[in-house]
Amino acid sequence: MSRSINRDTQLCMSLSARPGNFGTRFQNFLYEALGLNYVYKAFTTRDLPAAIGGIRALGIRGCAISMPFKEACIPLVDAIDVSAEAIASINTIVNDDGFLRAYNTDYIAIWKLIEQHGISRDTRLALRGSGGMAKAVACAFRDAGFKHGHIVARNELAGRRLAETSGFSWAADTRGLAAELLVNVTPIGMEGGTEADQLAFDDDDVKRSSMVFDVVALPPETPVIRLARSLGKPVITGAEVIVLQAVEQFVLYTGVRPAEESIARAAAHALS
Amino acid sequence: MSRSINRDTQLCMSLSARPGNFGTRFQNFLYEALGLNYVYKAFTTRDLPAAIGGIRALGIRGCAISMPFKEACIPLVDAIDVSAEAIASINTIVNDDGFLRAYNTDYIAIWKLIEQHGISRDTRLALRGSGGMAKAVACAFRDAGFKHGHIVARNELAGRRLAETSGFSWAADTRGLAAELLVNVTPIGMEGGTEADQLAFDDDDVKRSSMVFDVVALPPETPVIRLARSLGKPVITGAEVIVLQAVEQFVLYTGVRPAEESIARAAAHALS
Repeated sequence: MSRSINRDTQLCMSLSARPGNFGTRFQNFLYEALGLNYVYKAFTTRDLPAAIGGIRALGIRGCAISMPFKEACIPLVDAIDVSAEAIASINTIVNDDGFLRAYNTDYIAIWKLIEQHGISRDTRLALRGSGGMAKAVACAFRDAGFKHGHIVARNELAGRRLAETSGFSWAADTRGLAAELLVNVTPIGMEGGTEADQLAFDDDDVKRSSMVFDVVALPPETPVIRLARSLGKPVITGAEVIVLQAVEQFVLYTGVRPAEESIARAAAHALS
Repeated sequence: MSRSINRDTQLCMSLSARPGNFGTRFQNFLYEALGLNYVYKAFTTRDLPAAIGGIRALGIRGCAISMPFKEACIPLVDAIDVSAEAIASINTIVNDDGFLRAYNTDYIAIWKLIEQHGISRDTRLALRGSGGMAKAVACAFRDAGFKHGHIVARNELAGRRLAETSGFSWAADTRGLAAELLVNVTPIGMEGGTEADQLAFDDDDVKRSSMVFDVVALPPETPVIRLARSLGKPVITGAEVIVLQAVEQFVLYTGVRPAEESIARAAAHALS
């Protein structure tokens, strides 16, 4: 309850071009469920250095960083955690008495999902995408020990660059790759996008695969996830990614790791 | 409820050396009672320019300014309202799409209380104090049309300066003043202060007066207010000042003027 906000309440926040409601609903739900004196609010800005300076000067406890600020924040913080360093992209700032440390909880979440789903390190990947999030995902697979696979990207320059960074190969499309794990890190299938009704991987790719991982969180069931489920393939959804990365932010801000049941209720609330 | 905070929620805040709970409780109570999508939180800072820059960059809707920032904020805002200009002291910033305008709602509140209590302009004042708040109070009396009276201050330099600014005379003490309206704008009688059990004006002064006005808000009944009541004198309390100035801030932030009944309930909640 905002009525119970007092002088000791900690503020956490997000910065993005177009603030959504997921983080606000997820974090505030858990603050209340766990009785933590925190409150969360989404912001946007036209002056990133002043916004980050304000976080430091006002003692705002933490800040989620979304598009298009993930790279631009790097020179504005005081330290970069190992989760963000290799990929030069951050999505979380933690403020300890004016000292700002940046993390990438997407990277942490992807790595955890690889562990949770027990994916064999020998699996051959086809990872579609070459943007900032694709970099976090590809580097998490690399650092988890995956060695075989392709970055599939129509943009050859970006695709080859990410392939080089992550130790995979580049391919313009999936023909002949015979990938076992298909990973979508493009906006294909995303609600409200121009390719909302498209498949990130086609029928034949999905049939040949042993698992499909779609980073797109909205809708929770993208066309390629629906196809994979209909073919009886195991899947990892973007909803798992967005929730797990938000849990890692929650832990960084509060020092408290919520129980699985609390996380499930917060996720259901935030994604509803 | 913080669970109902969403991407459109407006943040208002305060900046002071030692944040209290009054503003937070008062404003949040009214936001909920009136169904306004706002939330309020108190902050402190060690870097005022960066804090004000953050208010601008994050689109924080409004900010109450308390000690010791009331003068230092002036060069950091874009415009000064007439309520703050003459006294060179602000207590409120309103952010309109990055344009910061500063007000002094203490000054506005004092003027309104003079009107509400129907105090005759011919009344002879004795105003004790010479700090920033004393300046706001003395200038409100001056601008409301009061011409007769004394600034009572042990600090002669500050006392004479304020007397000159406000058009009153200076006196080191109340002997021989025969003041009709006694106004305390010092910490005498303030909870937790070194003079918490002292009278801001002595027995004889209060007996001779026709009204006592104490700006000290905590406790709601200071020793001099209790004395005045026991002698059947009408009083104006600091609780009235703090509530009325907070109402003016609320109106500036939201554009909504709450009903008297809502204000009374918010005040009871915030002062409890």
